[in-house]
Amino acid sequence: MHILITGAAGMIGSKLTQALVARGTLRGAPITGLTLVDVNPPALPVGVPGAALSADLSDPAAAPALIEHRPDVIFHLAAIVSGEAEADTAKGYDVNLKGTMALCHAIAAERDYAPRLVFASSIAVFGVPLPDVIPDDQPPRPLTSYGTQKRMGELMIDDLSRKGLLDGVSLRLPTICVRPGKPNAAASGFYSSILREPLSGQTATLPVPDSTRHWFASPRSAVGFLLHAAAMDTGPLGQDRAINLPGVDATVGDAIAALGRIAGEAAVARIERRDDPAVAAIVAGWPRAFDPQRARSLGFRAEADMDEIIRVHVEDELGGKLPD
Amino acid sequence: MHILITGAAGMIGSKLTQALVARGTLRGAPITGLTLVDVNPPALPVGVPGAALSADLSDPAAAPALIEHRPDVIFHLAAIVSGEAEADTAKGYDVNLKGTMALCHAIAAERDYAPRLVFASSIAVFGVPLPDVIPDDQPPRPLTSYGTQKRMGELMIDDLSRKGLLDGVSLRLPTICVRPGKPNAAASGFYSSILREPLSGQTATLPVPDSTRHWFASPRSAVGFLLHAAAMDTGPLGQDRAINLPGVDATVGDAIAALGRIAGEAAVARIERRDDPAVAAIVAGWPRAFDPQRARSLGFRAEADMDEIIRVHVEDELGGKLPD
Repeated sequence: MHILITGAAGMIGSKLTQALVARGTLRGAPITGLTLVDVNPPALPVGVPGAALSADLSDPAAAPALIEHRPDVIFHLAAIVSGEAEADTAKGYDVNLKGTMALCHAIAAERDYAPRLVFASSIAVFGVPLPDVIPDDQPPRPLTSYGTQKRMGELMIDDLSRKGLLDGVSLRLPTICVRPGKPNAAASGFYSSILREPLSGQTATLPVPDSTRHWFASPRSAVGFLLHAAAMDTGPLGQDRAINLPGVDATVGDAIAALGRIAGEAAVARIERRDDPAVAAIVAGWPRAFDPQRARSLGFRAEADMDEIIRVHVEDELGGKLPD
Repeated sequence: MHILITGAAGMIGSKLTQALVARGTLRGAPITGLTLVDVNPPALPVGVPGAALSADLSDPAAAPALIEHRPDVIFHLAAIVSGEAEADTAKGYDVNLKGTMALCHAIAAERDYAPRLVFASSIAVFGVPLPDVIPDDQPPRPLTSYGTQKRMGELMIDDLSRKGLLDGVSLRLPTICVRPGKPNAAASGFYSSILREPLSGQTATLPVPDSTRHWFASPRSAVGFLLHAAAMDTGPLGQDRAINLPGVDATVGDAIAALGRIAGEAAVARIERRDDPAVAAIVAGWPRAFDPQRARSLGFRAEADMDEIIRVHVEDELGGKLPD
C-alpha cells in the first residue's frame, strides 16, 4: 500500500500522516510507502518508508513525477485558503485548479491505473441563497473563487471517475474547529480562536453576534473522513462523487455555552465581543447547517455537539489539561 | 470596436464573421478590427481590417498574444466536439478547458480591462435525470466530458465576472439544425442529415424512433444569440452568467412532418429508417425541451417551429431553391 499526500505539511496533512503512521495499514494492507509533498518539504516521520518532497503542483513537471510510482491511494489536500484565493485570483487558479487538473491528468495518462483519489473539497461550493438546512441534493453555486475552484475540481473528478480513469471521492469538509496553532487572518479564524485562546488562558475577540450559526467538525473528524473515504466502497456513489459531510450545527452562543460547561466562566470571560460588520457580512453568506443523510449512510461520522468538539481539542492538543 | 473570434474557422465562427462584416458595426460602434483565430488559419474576408491567425489556445503563449491588443469583444467558440472530447480525454481537457482557462486568465491579467466575453457553452451541461421541460433553475449535472468542460468554463466565467475581471456571458446553445455541409460522425448528426440530405435530393438514415424529442435552433439563430450576447446589458444577469437559450422543441416526427409540408412527400421518402440502439441510448440522455423564460426576457429569439428552421436552411444554404 503506497500512499501519496499532497499538502502534507498543512495542519490536516500532518495529522493525517501521524494517523497513517500510527495505524500502519490502510484498506487492510500494510503501508509500504508514504510520499509526502508540499511546497515546503514536510517532515517524514521516523521509521516510515517513503519520501518527503518539495513540489509545486502548478509546475507541469511535478504531477507526472509523483504519479509515475503509481500510489494506490492519493490524498489531494494541497490548496491555498479561501481568503488568499479571493485576493490573488491568478495564484488561486494556479494552485487550486491547475494543480488539481495536473494531478488528475497525470493519473488519467497512466494505463491500467485508477487509484483512489480523495480530494479535500469544501462547503464553500455552496453560496447564497441557501436553506437553513442544506439537503444532499442542494445544487452547488459557489460565490467565491475558492468555492469555484473546488467545484471545478469536483466536476472533473466526477467525469474522470465515470470514465474509470481514477476512483475519486470529493469531501466537502465542514469548517474545521478547533484549529490548533496561532490565530490566522481567515474570516473564519475567530470560530477556533474563541475556543482555543480561552482554553489556553489567553483572550480572544469575537467579531459576530452570538446568533451566528455554522457547520463544524474537529481536526480528528477531518482525518477520520479522509481515512474513511480512502477505504470505502465507491460503488454506491454512482456518478456523483462529492459528499456533504456530517458535522455539528452550532451558533456562536452554543460554542460559548459549551466552553463554559467544560472550562468554566473564567474561560468564557476571556472572550471579548467587538462587532466587525465586514466579518459578519462574509459569514452571512456561509452555510449554516446540513442534513448529510448520504454521508451518514456511507459511514462518515463527526462529533455530536460543540462539547465533544472542545473535548477533542483538549485531548489532542492540550494533553487533556484545562487552564487553571 | 475590435473583435476577437476563437474557433473562427468553424461553421458558427464563419457565419458570425460574415454577419459582423455585413453589419459593419457592433454595440453601435464601427468594427475597426477583426482578429480571427483557429488551429488552421481562417480566411479573412476581403476589405476587413484585421488578422487571421493560426493558434492553439492550449499553448500557454497563445492567449496572452491574442489579448495584448485588448479586443473589446471576444467570441470564444474554439472547442472540440462532444464525441471527440469523450473519446480523447486529454485532448478534450486541453482544448475545451485549458484553452478557456488560458484565455480567461490572459484577460484577467490585464489591468483596467474587462472585455465582453461571449462563451459558446452547451445544453450538454445537463445530464439525466431531467424533467421533460427544463426550467431556468435546473442544476447543471454534466454526464459527458464535453458537458463537464463547458460547465467548468461557465463557473470560471461567473467567478471572474463577479470580480470585474471580465464581463462574461455563457450561452448554452441548443443543438444546431440544420447544419450545412457533409454528414459527420457526431451522434446528433442525423438531426441535420434527415433534413439536409432530402432537401438536396439525397438519401439519409434515421437511427432513432420518430418519438425522440430534442431542442434545436438554426445556425442563423446561433449567430443571432452571439451578437445579442455581445451587445446586451449584463447587469440583469447578476452572478449567474450562463443562459439557457430559446429553441424549438420537436420530435423527429415533427421534423419529418415539417419537411413534408415544405419539400413534399418525395423528400420524406428519401429518409431511410434503420434503428441504431447505440445512438438511441446516447440521445436518450439529452435534454428534450426548455422553458427559457430568462433568455426570452433578455431579448434572445429563436425560430418558432421546425418549419421555420427548415425555411432558414433553404434560404441561407440553398439560395431559396427546393429539390425538384
